[in-house]
Amino acid sequence: MIKSELLYRVLYAHTDMMGVIYYAKYFEYFEAGRNDLLRNLDYPYLLLEEKGYALPVIEAHCTFHKAGKYDQLLRIVTMMKDLPSVRLKLEYEIYNEETLLVSGYTIHSFVNNKTLKPVRPPEDFMILMKSKFK
Amino acid sequence: MIKSELLYRVLYAHTDMMGVIYYAKYFEYFEAGRNDLLRNLDYPYLLLEEKGYALPVIEAHCTFHKAGKYDQLLRIVTMMKDLPSVRLKLEYEIYNEETLLVSGYTIHSFVNNKTLKPVRPPEDFMILMKSKFK
Amino acid sequence: MIKSELLYRVLYAHTDMMGVIYYAKYFEYFEAGRNDLLRNLDYPYLLLEEKGYALPVIEAHCTFHKAGKYDQLLRIVTMMKDLPSVRLKLEYEIYNEETLLVSGYTIHSFVNNKTLKPVRPPEDFMILMKSKFK
Amino acid sequence: MIKSELLYRVLYAHTDMMGVIYYAKYFEYFEAGRNDLLRNLDYPYLLLEEKGYALPVIEAHCTFHKAGKYDQLLRIVTMMKDLPSVRLKLEYEIYNEETLLVSGYTIHSFVNNKTLKPVRPPEDFMILMKSKFK
Repeated sequence: MIKSELLYRVLYAHTDMMGVIYYAKYFEYFEAGRNDLLRNLDYPYLLLEEKGYALPVIEAHCTFHKAGKYDQLLRIVTMMKDLPSVRLKLEYEIYNEETLLVSGYTIHSFVNNKTLKPVRPPEDFMILMKSKFK
Repeated sequence: MIKSELLYRVLYAHTDMMGVIYYAKYFEYFEAGRNDLLRNLDYPYLLLEEKGYALPVIEAHCTFHKAGKYDQLLRIVTMMKDLPSVRLKLEYEIYNEETLLVSGYTIHSFVNNKTLKPVRPPEDFMILMKSKFK
Repeated sequence: MIKSELLYRVLYAHTDMMGVIYYAKYFEYFEAGRNDLLRNLDYPYLLLEEKGYALPVIEAHCTFHKAGKYDQLLRIVTMMKDLPSVRLKLEYEIYNEETLLVSGYTIHSFVNNKTLKPVRPPEDFMILMKSKFK
Repeated sequence: MIKSELLYRVLYAHTDMMGVIYYAKYFEYFEAGRNDLLRNLDYPYLLLEEKGYALPVIEAHCTFHKAGKYDQLLRIVTMMKDLPSVRLKLEYEIYNEETLLVSGYTIHSFVNNKTLKPVRPPEDFMILMKSKFK
């Protein structure tokens, strides 16, 4: 498993009139988490784009366990549990201190970033991933 | 089944550098859809809040079929297929003209909007829902 | 003066824990207003992009008079008071019923949408604008 | 002058189809900056709310000098140049490395966070500010 942890501060902008983080915002936090995981692998997402790829989300899910609040310093845990193929699955858990707020996942498809057609992942990316999953 | 259809214009604000609608934005469109469905039932969400209830999302899912783009006049179809109980499930399909862009659902829990503790839905709401599902 | 009026429903997503519309959201409403104004002139913003132009914001201002709230059906009034040149200024007033919530403006620069360098506005756009300001 | 500097990573969520940061997002970055400035003074914004105050924005301005991009690690510089009174002005500069992307300001009013009516700032806040401006 590949894993990263990122601290992320909740803005007023992320809250809603219920006084808690608006549900859709967690999907932005998921993005922050996966950016971080790829950067930590020395394969930042921008590198994928520079090589002509993109990784659009084809499925997203979130379960909301407990309300997050303004100013909390969230811990976004991002996990790649399986070697990617033409698809890549990432799982997320977001904590405030030791309390799990949400868990979820996103599934991505490798595409050509001009045509948006599905393609095989870049070879150097796969070599890197395989080295991590050994 | 209770169903509503809402037209919603895509802003530049909703797009990302891939040139398409950013994935998390669809969950805001889902919200626009469910507001619309409740308003059409003459039971707008604000009425729930005025009565001391809230309906936080406890689970959200979206499958992305095709990229949506700036300036499209999306059609957000919101469906309640089952009589709500302590939980309420809504399903969504978002179309650009005849093309299905995304489909998904949200599951909500009735809570007291002060304590955020789960409660039974308001009686008049249930009477109304039952009249629609007969 | 060229003027347009657009009705826009406030989502829960636009509110914050103060129970009102988050201040930065009004700049998205301004965008909705200017899209509407251009569309009403039969010169939608997408047409500008198709012709190789873009209109990035170079200055934005908003004065907040009164708090907007969830579910209000705002009226976004967008006004072009002066003939555009290399720059275009738009002014906005957003109302809930007869109450002015915010007023503001944005100043835009015509640029080549590949190089992002400033350029003169398209000739057919200027002819159209001149016909409106006669 | 009171000043803080905060590093803030640009998400894909913040970009638009022009490939740059969407203009309204900078106002969220301003919020991140002012949260940081208040926290560094040991008077976090939440403390103001706990004492019954809020600090809504009554005026906001931004000048856009250069386009910001995905994945940049922005430096948000927030400055309080004048001792606050019933109003508080904050100025912002956002840099990518040494390049100034935007500059702007927000003006806030102290209000009672129940009634949203203007009030004098809390005394301990003013004592703290005065000690900084000596």
